[in-house]
Amino acid sequence: MENKPLIVLNFKTYAESMGEKAVRMAKFCEEVSVDSEVDIIACPQIPDIYRVANAVKIPVFAQHIDAVGAGSYTGHITADCVRSAGAKGTLINHSERRLLLSEIDAALQSAKKAGLTTIVCTNNIAVTSAAAALSPDFVAIEPPELIGSGNPVSKANPEIVSGSVSAVKKINPRVKVLCGAGISTGDDVAAAIELGTEGVLLASGVIKAKDPKAALFDLVKKI
Amino acid sequence: MENKPLIVLNFKTYAESMGEKAVRMAKFCEEVSVDSEVDIIACPQIPDIYRVANAVKIPVFAQHIDAVGAGSYTGHITADCVRSAGAKGTLINHSERRLLLSEIDAALQSAKKAGLTTIVCTNNIAVTSAAAALSPDFVAIEPPELIGSGNPVSKANPEIVSGSVSAVKKINPRVKVLCGAGISTGDDVAAAIELGTEGVLLASGVIKAKDPKAALFDLVKKI
Amino acid sequence: MENKPLIVLNFKTYAESMGEKAVRMAKFCEEVSVDSEVDIIACPQIPDIYRVANAVKIPVFAQHIDAVGAGSYTGHITADCVRSAGAKGTLINHSERRLLLSEIDAALQSAKKAGLTTIVCTNNIAVTSAAAALSPDFVAIEPPELIGSGNPVSKANPEIVSGSVSAVKKINPRVKVLCGAGISTGDDVAAAIELGTEGVLLASGVIKAKDPKAALFDLVKKI
Amino acid sequence: MENKPLIVLNFKTYAESMGEKAVRMAKFCEEVSVDSEVDIIACPQIPDIYRVANAVKIPVFAQHIDAVGAGSYTGHITADCVRSAGAKGTLINHSERRLLLSEIDAALQSAKKAGLTTIVCTNNIAVTSAAAALSPDFVAIEPPELIGSGNPVSKANPEIVSGSVSAVKKINPRVKVLCGAGISTGDDVAAAIELGTEGVLLASGVIKAKDPKAALFDLVKKI
Repeated sequence: MENKPLIVLNFKTYAESMGEKAVRMAKFCEEVSVDSEVDIIACPQIPDIYRVANAVKIPVFAQHIDAVGAGSYTGHITADCVRSAGAKGTLINHSERRLLLSEIDAALQSAKKAGLTTIVCTNNIAVTSAAAALSPDFVAIEPPELIGSGNPVSKANPEIVSGSVSAVKKINPRVKVLCGAGISTGDDVAAAIELGTEGVLLASGVIKAKDPKAALFDLVKKI
Repeated sequence: MENKPLIVLNFKTYAESMGEKAVRMAKFCEEVSVDSEVDIIACPQIPDIYRVANAVKIPVFAQHIDAVGAGSYTGHITADCVRSAGAKGTLINHSERRLLLSEIDAALQSAKKAGLTTIVCTNNIAVTSAAAALSPDFVAIEPPELIGSGNPVSKANPEIVSGSVSAVKKINPRVKVLCGAGISTGDDVAAAIELGTEGVLLASGVIKAKDPKAALFDLVKKI
Repeated sequence: MENKPLIVLNFKTYAESMGEKAVRMAKFCEEVSVDSEVDIIACPQIPDIYRVANAVKIPVFAQHIDAVGAGSYTGHITADCVRSAGAKGTLINHSERRLLLSEIDAALQSAKKAGLTTIVCTNNIAVTSAAAALSPDFVAIEPPELIGSGNPVSKANPEIVSGSVSAVKKINPRVKVLCGAGISTGDDVAAAIELGTEGVLLASGVIKAKDPKAALFDLVKKI
Repeated sequence: MENKPLIVLNFKTYAESMGEKAVRMAKFCEEVSVDSEVDIIACPQIPDIYRVANAVKIPVFAQHIDAVGAGSYTGHITADCVRSAGAKGTLINHSERRLLLSEIDAALQSAKKAGLTTIVCTNNIAVTSAAAALSPDFVAIEPPELIGSGNPVSKANPEIVSGSVSAVKKINPRVKVLCGAGISTGDDVAAAIELGTEGVLLASGVIKAKDPKAALFDLVKKI
């Protein structure tokens, strides 16, 4: 995942990307990734990680982990368990699954110990700075009001993206920046890269597309 | 699961029952269940449901589901997804993963639609009554202070168990009652049955035992 | 608060009913209560309880209490403290401040010990039943989708109100039922009473009215 | 609060510092502050802010505010309301009342608009860095395991204090650093100042002391 932009596809809890359909969606990602040589990461629902990770060679990430490890934590999602199910990384603090500040830190520490790549989602420039201070691998700036809007952050609010890139450079230049919210086309991706990000995080633009594979091919066309 | 008592084994996030070890633990459950003709339910970590459910014939339950369904709910655990991964039921509101009252109701509704058997965990007689009013299949009374104590609720606090059984009979007699906390031996199970429950919910008594299979055989010996 | 219907006015965090304006709004309530002989309860923001309770003779209720008591609970709202500030009761589990099931129970226990009258808010008939099983003084059924809508629950969804009244009678007949959501006129109140409730819980219908005092007088006109 | 160290006294929900006793405790703080010319800030329970702020001339801070403002936020604590009740500042994210990262940011923005001084509590150096990136007036590093221990952070874990001071200098040098946990004597305060902090945050060391006024005098003796 070094030089080329990165596409992170969040399956959310959409019916179109659950169970057997999660495997099918991940295979589309794999096909487009192989064809385009662009890294595409699939983020299925947590109960689907194992079967998706066993069906494809592209990286599979969890959508969330909790801040706890082995122990009396019934119902929690641990870094170790998603790792053993085949995940190579995880989203943390997605706008639909926010965490306490202290939990983000603890989840990052668990993820690092488990060898997971981490993407901390943020909602504005100040929060991006704070997240960068915790040294995740990536931050992903996603203004909540644009998520699922079809109105791409890279065009609707380019300042929040470039501002996040600058803020992260100041705080912790080893952290890479993604952006998300409203992304659905190759033009949106190109605009995101132009603003200094290393790639995008998206969901409905592909998952809810009539032809998800075509949508994926469109996404990578300008990379 | 009709006439004989029921053993529900919660794997929590213990290292001893994660990943491949979850499969191994579930196979112990299966072996003891087949041998004893006692229903034993395995509750592995959520990312482990798929591989455990594919490896054994006994019922596999989730440790938790969230109150949401298909949609923009990144990182949440849905009834539909754990069902499609192979779960036949789920714990809800375990003391280590409490839910809002309104979420317990919504989770129960989702679980029913998905065809999952439901066990709502409770902490005292009043809360057991409230949970019973929501019509789950089971309530499981577990005084938090006894969980993991090795001091069995069926002996340490028999009144809370028999009181829960009476309260449920008054509120909603179709709901069955389990009890948990500190259970580790066949004597504890026998005492629980004696108090009017349909079985037990336990974790460390088996998972942390030197010989979990022997511990399981001991549990069912008086049934 | 025995024989006549009850009006509970939730000040929320509206600017129109904060600080000095909370005192003014509570005095309107007092004036209308004295004039109409209808019990009106004022629920100001928590930091305003003390000065409101010192300014009026009608009962002042808190909008929320937490499930904890005296101790290391920085930032929490205890029954004892709102009581000592002058509150005579409290809302618990309002749809904008939901609690865990076990917390509702613990908050009710603290409130009773502190001598506070309790109103547990609920969102549907099943949850009303569960809340009634916990023995609060009142439950208040408020379908969240109608809150602030101007579309009164007593007309938009009379079945949820009468269904709640029946459910509570079955579970715990000592619990009284209020309803709320969309209530703003005396007709809405009359419809609520007709459905078997003991009164209403409302907010914007009065607080956001051009003339809150006139709105209050209108509310009680048919009682 | 510029040149001299600062003592922030958190009343928690202790019975010893509630209601009329909150006023009494705040008057002790005022007396010691006037005598010593050391700034002492009193943080009573939220329902007590109004009467405490009206009884003393030292600054009164809230123990917590929520991330919301005026509107449909029943039961929440807003910056505007605690300000109007007399608070001059607020703790945010105390270890007993943690917030989501995005809520800390939103609470800070509300507090600034309302003219409140802000102290964000943190649990380790990484979290201190993240908090500093959000530009509060103060961060207060408090290792949770030492809170209430009587084992002062300034002696038990001086590295976490000096590490926090260094981290904040790098990230955002305008942010001032306090430390807390286990502080109870003037020696503990002196050690904290020595490590580069601007003062301390404490609770039980004074509130639970047999003679709180004497404890306060001891605290300031070396300043």
